[in-house]
Amino acid sequence: MKILVLHGPNLNLLGTREPHVYGEQSLENINLSIRDWAGKNGVEVEIIQSNHEGELVDAIGSAPAKFDVLVVNPAAFTHTSVALRDAVSAAGIPSVEVHLSNIHSREEFRSKSLIAPVCQGQISGFGGYSYILGLQAALMLVRQG
Amino acid sequence: MKILVLHGPNLNLLGTREPHVYGEQSLENINLSIRDWAGKNGVEVEIIQSNHEGELVDAIGSAPAKFDVLVVNPAAFTHTSVALRDAVSAAGIPSVEVHLSNIHSREEFRSKSLIAPVCQGQISGFGGYSYILGLQAALMLVRQG
Amino acid sequence: MKILVLHGPNLNLLGTREPHVYGEQSLENINLSIRDWAGKNGVEVEIIQSNHEGELVDAIGSAPAKFDVLVVNPAAFTHTSVALRDAVSAAGIPSVEVHLSNIHSREEFRSKSLIAPVCQGQISGFGGYSYILGLQAALMLVRQG
Amino acid sequence: MKILVLHGPNLNLLGTREPHVYGEQSLENINLSIRDWAGKNGVEVEIIQSNHEGELVDAIGSAPAKFDVLVVNPAAFTHTSVALRDAVSAAGIPSVEVHLSNIHSREEFRSKSLIAPVCQGQISGFGGYSYILGLQAALMLVRQG
Amino acid sequence: MKILVLHGPNLNLLGTREPHVYGEQSLENINLSIRDWAGKNGVEVEIIQSNHEGELVDAIGSAPAKFDVLVVNPAAFTHTSVALRDAVSAAGIPSVEVHLSNIHSREEFRSKSLIAPVCQGQISGFGGYSYILGLQAALMLVRQG
Amino acid sequence: MKILVLHGPNLNLLGTREPHVYGEQSLENINLSIRDWAGKNGVEVEIIQSNHEGELVDAIGSAPAKFDVLVVNPAAFTHTSVALRDAVSAAGIPSVEVHLSNIHSREEFRSKSLIAPVCQGQISGFGGYSYILGLQAALMLVRQG
Amino acid sequence: MKILVLHGPNLNLLGTREPHVYGEQSLENINLSIRDWAGKNGVEVEIIQSNHEGELVDAIGSAPAKFDVLVVNPAAFTHTSVALRDAVSAAGIPSVEVHLSNIHSREEFRSKSLIAPVCQGQISGFGGYSYILGLQAALMLVRQG
Amino acid sequence: MKILVLHGPNLNLLGTREPHVYGEQSLENINLSIRDWAGKNGVEVEIIQSNHEGELVDAIGSAPAKFDVLVVNPAAFTHTSVALRDAVSAAGIPSVEVHLSNIHSREEFRSKSLIAPVCQGQISGFGGYSYILGLQAALMLVRQG
Amino acid sequence: MKILVLHGPNLNLLGTREPHVYGEQSLENINLSIRDWAGKNGVEVEIIQSNHEGELVDAIGSAPAKFDVLVVNPAAFTHTSVALRDAVSAAGIPSVEVHLSNIHSREEFRSKSLIAPVCQGQISGFGGYSYILGLQAALMLVRQG
Amino acid sequence: MKILVLHGPNLNLLGTREPHVYGEQSLENINLSIRDWAGKNGVEVEIIQSNHEGELVDAIGSAPAKFDVLVVNPAAFTHTSVALRDAVSAAGIPSVEVHLSNIHSREEFRSKSLIAPVCQGQISGFGGYSYILGLQAALMLVRQG
Amino acid sequence: MKILVLHGPNLNLLGTREPHVYGEQSLENINLSIRDWAGKNGVEVEIIQSNHEGELVDAIGSAPAKFDVLVVNPAAFTHTSVALRDAVSAAGIPSVEVHLSNIHSREEFRSKSLIAPVCQGQISGFGGYSYILGLQAALMLVRQG
Amino acid sequence: MKILVLHGPNLNLLGTREPHVYGEQSLENINLSIRDWAGKNGVEVEIIQSNHEGELVDAIGSAPAKFDVLVVNPAAFTHTSVALRDAVSAAGIPSVEVHLSNIHSREEFRSKSLIAPVCQGQISGFGGYSYILGLQAALMLVRQG
Repeated sequence: MKILVLHGPNLNLLGTREPHVYGEQSLENINLSIRDWAGKNGVEVEIIQSNHEGELVDAIGSAPAKFDVLVVNPAAFTHTSVALRDAVSAAGIPSVEVHLSNIHSREEFRSKSLIAPVCQGQISGFGGYSYILGLQAALMLVRQG
Repeated sequence: MKILVLHGPNLNLLGTREPHVYGEQSLENINLSIRDWAGKNGVEVEIIQSNHEGELVDAIGSAPAKFDVLVVNPAAFTHTSVALRDAVSAAGIPSVEVHLSNIHSREEFRSKSLIAPVCQGQISGFGGYSYILGLQAALMLVRQG
Repeated sequence: MKILVLHGPNLNLLGTREPHVYGEQSLENINLSIRDWAGKNGVEVEIIQSNHEGELVDAIGSAPAKFDVLVVNPAAFTHTSVALRDAVSAAGIPSVEVHLSNIHSREEFRSKSLIAPVCQGQISGFGGYSYILGLQAALMLVRQG
Repeated sequence: MKILVLHGPNLNLLGTREPHVYGEQSLENINLSIRDWAGKNGVEVEIIQSNHEGELVDAIGSAPAKFDVLVVNPAAFTHTSVALRDAVSAAGIPSVEVHLSNIHSREEFRSKSLIAPVCQGQISGFGGYSYILGLQAALMLVRQG
Repeated sequence: MKILVLHGPNLNLLGTREPHVYGEQSLENINLSIRDWAGKNGVEVEIIQSNHEGELVDAIGSAPAKFDVLVVNPAAFTHTSVALRDAVSAAGIPSVEVHLSNIHSREEFRSKSLIAPVCQGQISGFGGYSYILGLQAALMLVRQG
Repeated sequence: MKILVLHGPNLNLLGTREPHVYGEQSLENINLSIRDWAGKNGVEVEIIQSNHEGELVDAIGSAPAKFDVLVVNPAAFTHTSVALRDAVSAAGIPSVEVHLSNIHSREEFRSKSLIAPVCQGQISGFGGYSYILGLQAALMLVRQG
Repeated sequence: MKILVLHGPNLNLLGTREPHVYGEQSLENINLSIRDWAGKNGVEVEIIQSNHEGELVDAIGSAPAKFDVLVVNPAAFTHTSVALRDAVSAAGIPSVEVHLSNIHSREEFRSKSLIAPVCQGQISGFGGYSYILGLQAALMLVRQG
Repeated sequence: MKILVLHGPNLNLLGTREPHVYGEQSLENINLSIRDWAGKNGVEVEIIQSNHEGELVDAIGSAPAKFDVLVVNPAAFTHTSVALRDAVSAAGIPSVEVHLSNIHSREEFRSKSLIAPVCQGQISGFGGYSYILGLQAALMLVRQG
Repeated sequence: MKILVLHGPNLNLLGTREPHVYGEQSLENINLSIRDWAGKNGVEVEIIQSNHEGELVDAIGSAPAKFDVLVVNPAAFTHTSVALRDAVSAAGIPSVEVHLSNIHSREEFRSKSLIAPVCQGQISGFGGYSYILGLQAALMLVRQG
Repeated sequence: MKILVLHGPNLNLLGTREPHVYGEQSLENINLSIRDWAGKNGVEVEIIQSNHEGELVDAIGSAPAKFDVLVVNPAAFTHTSVALRDAVSAAGIPSVEVHLSNIHSREEFRSKSLIAPVCQGQISGFGGYSYILGLQAALMLVRQG
Repeated sequence: MKILVLHGPNLNLLGTREPHVYGEQSLENINLSIRDWAGKNGVEVEIIQSNHEGELVDAIGSAPAKFDVLVVNPAAFTHTSVALRDAVSAAGIPSVEVHLSNIHSREEFRSKSLIAPVCQGQISGFGGYSYILGLQAALMLVRQG
Repeated sequence: MKILVLHGPNLNLLGTREPHVYGEQSLENINLSIRDWAGKNGVEVEIIQSNHEGELVDAIGSAPAKFDVLVVNPAAFTHTSVALRDAVSAAGIPSVEVHLSNIHSREEFRSKSLIAPVCQGQISGFGGYSYILGLQAALMLVRQG
């Protein structure tokens, strides 16, 4: 099984950026824990971070040929990108939306996701551990077929 | 460690009720998988289902004395109960909101949760497995203190 | 054939309560006319009144095993109870929403029903006679299968 | 007693038009069942169908001199015609709004009636039988004075 | 100078219809007072009442060839008819909107006119005298050119 | 009979101020035409202009003892002053709202008047002649009692 | 193949009416270009213009028996007529909505069409040429079946 | 004179629950101060706390037979319970709504009360002392008849 | 201790103005009862009424130097004056908002206060007695420090 | 004459992606039919597809120097990109917006285009044929100058 | 060159009032820095502070005769005063709106200015330095003519 | 001190693009005046223009290591880019938003900035001089620490 993990804009700054909101873990640390989980679960994983909406759309567009499932943290694009929504919807493979912070307890505009309606589910609020939960959900989704 | 799991209104009907929305698993089955997980993780778990908002508020009100963390599926009360919101907020222990279906891909009014803003996080869309993910999140929250 | 008739909150006060809005008929009188109609039409009828949302949800949850059709006056819960909506939707038997007063000519918030979209139809504004019309509609629905 | 029954726009197409929404009964059939009911109940009935708002307004304007009560299915005009609302309101005789389909479970804009607030009540969702229920309600309204 | 006076739907019922809202003057009386005013001011006047939006649109469409100015009481069409708005706008001659009742102190939806923005002005709330004020305004508009 | 005419804020600038919106007539000219009309109609008139909401409220508060009717152009206060609304409502004598420009064809926020619902009527869009029409309406209102 | 072309209210005034918005072509000219196109494409065409919503509803109601496809410019009814929407939806033959002006760059209320959601598509903004494009689209729709 | 004091959901947790919002006084203390005030003012008082909307509706429904006035802190039900609103409205005895915190300076949804419009008045923001002020208001209301 | 009591616009008219809304007590009477209460409670009180927003802002701006607490009935300014809100917020001494009528049961726009969020609390609906309750609340606020 | 055709995000996936919404034609096929049309009409055409908003903005920014007219399918950017709107507006050459699907019959958010108001017109709902209609419209726009 | 600087309501309290929002600089200090800047730039400056909307309207109304440009901090009136907007618009000389705090990062209602649309520009968020930037902008505007 | 100046999408077209909105100055000219100002004030400045949101996010993400302050004209991204907002917020150095045109006097959607709430302040409406004012504000912000 192969999982594509996508990190949206500004997530490259994790750890340094507003740690009271996003936690003190760096993206590198999160990626380590993702790879660690993948190793233990016999899953291949590819990880992409981009601040460019177009690169994320490209990656999702070519994902179905290579991956079984998507784990996506669209970050700021969650609330603004119909292009990402359409890409996920077109991909036609299971997808899980994850968020570090609890998007339901922040500014009003963050509680609404354009992407979630075309994903299987959404996980939000558990810091870097949101990714691990998202990977487990992805694993379950693929196994259940 | 002790976790209180709460099932909101109509969840007693699971398996029979609209399986295309909520899946074919009965509540009994879900509870079995919860207890199974609890056994494997050395965690005590108490499970309550109620169609009565007041009983859920009562249960949450007395939870802090007995439990370390809450896993709550408020079901229909998600969108209407300020009383549950205030109860969770007053409890002052970590709490995780879970949903069987993806509330973000159903009727507009279901995408807005009154409870999520006072929880640590929300997990939505993975059927009975949402509870297992919620329990893992709960475990992590308590361990991180 | 067996019909379950449900009276929502405050309907126990009928006759005494704001007669210019709800008419001067007591709930007892309405129930008599319901039973009278049932007798004449060879239909069994059970009548429940409750001010407790949870009791109404419980009653609807166990209705499919015992009844062929529901006639529900959700009263104040019409506008606030997603739990009742989900219960009616889950019941999977025909259901008719009835109202004593014309909910479309009162406060704006009363014109919107959360329950009606999951019922077969809605009857509103004919005082105690709304129930008789609702029973006739229920009869027709069951007979048409 | 004399009842005026009004069918709004496009109802002439009943039976052929989108039967999954409006049922398979033709307007002719409905009119037969109306006249049949009228015969049995010793009531005179006149039936008018028009796709022209102005003709319906004209008919209602001259109704008080000839009829005791109105049964109106405003169809598409339900949601757009203040002129019909004003006509019904000016008529000053009891009126009942009926709908074949359940207007509360269709497009959002159909759940709001401009006419209902000036009628005695509204009946919606029981196919051709909505008219029979409406006629019974009309009978009751006139008898109660 | 020639003025076209248009009465919208249901105004044929004036005097009998809800006199607490529209006054006790019949349309005939109002028309007499209009013709009386016209005689005294050396103005020709033509008066049309219709419950049919299309007839009013037709009348306005052919008005520029025959009239110098319009005085229109669109009644219920005030709030719903873009066709009347477009007709008045296309006519290209001065026009005055008049109302018997004060549309700003009734139901919220009556305070918004679709027609007023394409008229020179609006007069509302003075019963039959609104027409006389409207005629005077029309006279002034034409004289000022 | 005695009429109080009130001019709201910035009307002292008339003639110089945005003549494409408000016309080229100065306030002095308008006042002359008001006094001229008053002389011809045997009516006493007092005219007050103020940029101070409080002064207008004061004037209206003491008006009932001295005047039979109010003609008010609240100008910018039309859309913002609940205090003026309450003053007019408390005065308990007939009142007419007038506007130079057509407030229904300008910025959206100008089409809504807080004052009009507590006046007998509103006249808008006829330049300085709006006042003359307002005075005639006032005369009619007092004569009709 | 037979096409019904419908022109909505006020389109009879084309050429004279606000040419800066609707262009300088008269309806007669547009009809000539339609017939010319029809001749060249071996298509029969019938053209109806009406300011009466009811006549347009009548025409669409009887269209399926005689025509293969509709090309409709609902003009002002675009934004207000649920009756036209229901008629087009009931007709069950392909339909194309066309507009002379770009309805998306005018008043806010014009950008929303009640008719478009039940048509195959919408063409807007190309003057009289919108009809030719609409006819070509109609031709393609019928040929593709 | 007899007063019924009702405490809504979660108020049993007072003192422990979020003291920065609700103060440090326990419900027991507040009840003591209520009884103390009652003793000094020669008034009988009964106090009920419930997390169950139905119990509060029941209590209000039977209140008119036993009490002269209600003092109600609906807590979370303030913003969601039409059932409580209808119960208070049906009771037909004077009622006072009280709140510990200033509901007008918290989350937007808390500033709107469904109950207040059917009470004589509302008192909000003075901690436990809100009840004492509410009792005084109740006393005044009954004495003034 | 010294309390500043502020009466907003039109309150000078009390007793004469719409007694069915505001009661029959004159402002003089209310002021007498305020001074009477002050005498009995050993409190100094200064009372200002103004129809001028600016005078009320001036008074509040200079209040902190002379008063311990404010009791304000902003009347019509409640819903429109950010200036009063900022003045109260800047004053930095406890403040209580009072209203004669129940602002929550009148026009929608009156239920929203711009001032209440920066006061300690709000009292509404008890006629002249609202001031006495406000004074008691003020006393309590200052004593609690 | 030279036309620039722009395909927005995810259109590279056409044919494979949700064919029930977007049809079964690949982008390659559409491009062939575009070039075919161009050849037959003696028009030069350049075609660009990008998932990157910035690349589309760049392309439009440099278009006026090289092209006479734009045919743009902004796809997901239709509803979110003010940058594309500003680019089209700045280009100052005629532009036509096209859509494969009927954007007026899908999710509410898709019916609103940010780009259309600055184009000459919009064509929506005719699959790949929308481009051919768009090209014809473009041709007409340039020829009419 | 002569500049009129206007300070709106409550700005007389600067330095003492909520320094975490508005800074610790007194109005006197700001005025000193304004005069200092004026001296250095060879500009005459007049400064007015008022809590009275009417005084500010008066000042702006008479400004064109004496000043070349306005620098206005409307403070609380920014969000509520159409009268100030109309005064600035009527003045017809360049004007600059300035704010001490960043009005875009405070309560939602503060982000909307009624005045800014009729000014040349707006400067917000730089404390007392906002005035200096505003003066420089004013200088530039006048010099560019 | 080092300042990063960012120009958003389409600003490369300045001078040629809609000069009645954005002025006739080219971006080159503005950059010259920026560098000129920088030279005179002993400040280092780097200038980046991009039509790609991702490039601007990248630039801001790496800015804190190299710059003391940001001056950003987000252009079209002002109203749509949460990614830019998050980038500015994460950067943690002072930032100033500038606009050439007065965004408060254009289309409604342009008056709302997603970026401004996380900047120190906003300057809008002074053409190329907005940048100079922004640079001065930036200088002041850094000097004040």
